[in-house]
Amino acid sequence: MTAITDKDLYPEKNRVPPATQTIDLPGDYGTGDLVLRRGGKLRDVVVAYESWGDLNDNHDNVILILTGLSASAHACSSEADPTPGWWEYMIGSGKAIDTDRFHVICVNALGGCFGTTGPSSINPETNKPYGLDFPEVTIEDIAKAAHHALVEMGIEHLHAVIGASMGGMTALAYALQYPEEVCHLVSISAAARALPFTIAMRSLQREIVRNDPKWQGGYYDTNQEPKQGMLMARKLGLMSYRAADEWHQRFDRARIATDKKSDEPFGVEFEIESYLDYNAHKFSELFDANSYLYLSRAMDLFDAADHGGTVNAGLSKILALKTLVIGVPTDILFPVEQQRDIAEGLRKSGRHVEYKELDSIYGHDSFLIDKDRFVPVIREFLDNTECQAP
Amino acid sequence: MTAITDKDLYPEKNRVPPATQTIDLPGDYGTGDLVLRRGGKLRDVVVAYESWGDLNDNHDNVILILTGLSASAHACSSEADPTPGWWEYMIGSGKAIDTDRFHVICVNALGGCFGTTGPSSINPETNKPYGLDFPEVTIEDIAKAAHHALVEMGIEHLHAVIGASMGGMTALAYALQYPEEVCHLVSISAAARALPFTIAMRSLQREIVRNDPKWQGGYYDTNQEPKQGMLMARKLGLMSYRAADEWHQRFDRARIATDKKSDEPFGVEFEIESYLDYNAHKFSELFDANSYLYLSRAMDLFDAADHGGTVNAGLSKILALKTLVIGVPTDILFPVEQQRDIAEGLRKSGRHVEYKELDSIYGHDSFLIDKDRFVPVIREFLDNTECQAP
Repeated sequence: MTAITDKDLYPEKNRVPPATQTIDLPGDYGTGDLVLRRGGKLRDVVVAYESWGDLNDNHDNVILILTGLSASAHACSSEADPTPGWWEYMIGSGKAIDTDRFHVICVNALGGCFGTTGPSSINPETNKPYGLDFPEVTIEDIAKAAHHALVEMGIEHLHAVIGASMGGMTALAYALQYPEEVCHLVSISAAARALPFTIAMRSLQREIVRNDPKWQGGYYDTNQEPKQGMLMARKLGLMSYRAADEWHQRFDRARIATDKKSDEPFGVEFEIESYLDYNAHKFSELFDANSYLYLSRAMDLFDAADHGGTVNAGLSKILALKTLVIGVPTDILFPVEQQRDIAEGLRKSGRHVEYKELDSIYGHDSFLIDKDRFVPVIREFLDNTECQAP
Repeated sequence: MTAITDKDLYPEKNRVPPATQTIDLPGDYGTGDLVLRRGGKLRDVVVAYESWGDLNDNHDNVILILTGLSASAHACSSEADPTPGWWEYMIGSGKAIDTDRFHVICVNALGGCFGTTGPSSINPETNKPYGLDFPEVTIEDIAKAAHHALVEMGIEHLHAVIGASMGGMTALAYALQYPEEVCHLVSISAAARALPFTIAMRSLQREIVRNDPKWQGGYYDTNQEPKQGMLMARKLGLMSYRAADEWHQRFDRARIATDKKSDEPFGVEFEIESYLDYNAHKFSELFDANSYLYLSRAMDLFDAADHGGTVNAGLSKILALKTLVIGVPTDILFPVEQQRDIAEGLRKSGRHVEYKELDSIYGHDSFLIDKDRFVPVIREFLDNTECQAP
């Protein structure tokens, strides 16, 4: 295929979207240090976020959106950044997550690379990027950093916390850790604990990145990033995010045009190979390799059972008035059985649970694509929520 | 985890099992050259095989077993090699494929590395391994080489051809290309054409191997093989061969013992990671990287529609008296819909088809493991077959 240059994709490599703002965290008890679950600590953490809609006087109309692995805080366009966000169809004036009613905040995950402190950030102790000196991050820590950011903004009460994929895990962790502050919870294609097939998928992605010679044991030069490893890891990710039937319908056995073929042995011949190449390339050019490793590992480590001995005991810490759990049967990465487990666990501890399985063909990525199926469900749920700060 | 050394696994690296025999092919029309479907040709091809049971006087009690990607011709033990073969439970005296009745021959695939000519064989023109000078191989060529080998043995009539996975594709290709010679056909977890998800899986495996610096553009030193690339590619293969539920039942979130942990960052922590490492390591030590690339690509290229315009027109060339098609619903690589397509295609052209879906938890690999489900089906089918040479 014809080579895609960086220039085509990103005229200037700038990971932080233009409307993203940052907030400095004071650390635990104002010490400047955010103490992490697996023993590490981080000094002077910065959290990146975007927001839409007005905060009301009671500060009780806030919806917090937590992101998947690869998403920035730019979930939706705004005057400051009119480019469509990753959940553009869902958030906005009159949309399912209605910014006429809610003050919507999307936070970039701790350990990520879109403005929140992560392994590519400068380590204040060395004035170089952290690399592998970055401490191990868990889903609980990601929720904690988001929580500290909201406290700094003067928000101590959430109308709802909403997340899909890693964001759904983070939403569960948030609601577990700050139960009194979460009025409603929406968990989409998430997991209360990572299971072996998914761990294996992610573990191999990490191994592929680590084996790129340019990874350099985690201390790579920012001009010499392990992009080939990231490209292949992302292809594997994409395979796990989508469903075989959709690709069958879309690509079947279509070949790329002869003039686009490379001379490379065993190079791209089928459209599906070209599609993966194109999409994974976009990601590998943008995303920091170490952020990928840290966030990927964080998902493996997550287990609600760590919060009470069993998954259900962990989930029973959640006190939200109403919860909405959404699963997609074509999802092979966060399978629908895991969504049923979340719904069942919440029900067992007396939560009001609305459980929906959406007949979407896009696998794990359905929430990003399938507007027609996701909008009515989220809209109806939020329309029937009401909650005031205590 | 503790390091596994080559020595633990293979005291001496010798890819060809001890009971494997070889036969020299005379080439097309005795020219010495085997002409291949995509335009290449191979001189002085050797085919490796093993056999069990006696050939009868009519030479019409032969069952040909065609192998999956990674299997040698050692499907079953014998006096000459008492180690269990890869289908030990299925083949033998009194077993489902009964060597008291049948002369069973298992052939190593063209392009492989267990004795049949492949890219690691010596190129007679250069006296060096072929490497990427090996011509492109298709499933049809693999069937052709097996056919030529049988002709050389004086066998021109098969009681049955049986194959699973790539071997099932090869069995279809064999029955398509030599319809008058195949009395019965057993296709297990095969495909009449490769579909995009499976192509994507294999394409990424190849890309991982090709990006191992030791691959050296395909002309690696046999003492410096791209084992790390093969290790990772095989892990991906293993993930596609098994089913998520089995791993869930078997491993759940079990951790490896603390004293087995390596200090490597992002190293193995969960049992599932250790299991994959161990199993992929065995393979990466043994299998030739270029053979892997060639055979993997051959599967992508296979499409019965190339033999008549549509898949069904291609399948209609098969003239076997009875056929058995087996699928496994937990198989994500060669999904059960593809098995139904094969059965339906054969039925449409008037073949007698027995179609079985086996409720096995082992995914694509079920035929290698699930004796209790596979034995009765194969036994019953073969017990009810009768066929004499014309």
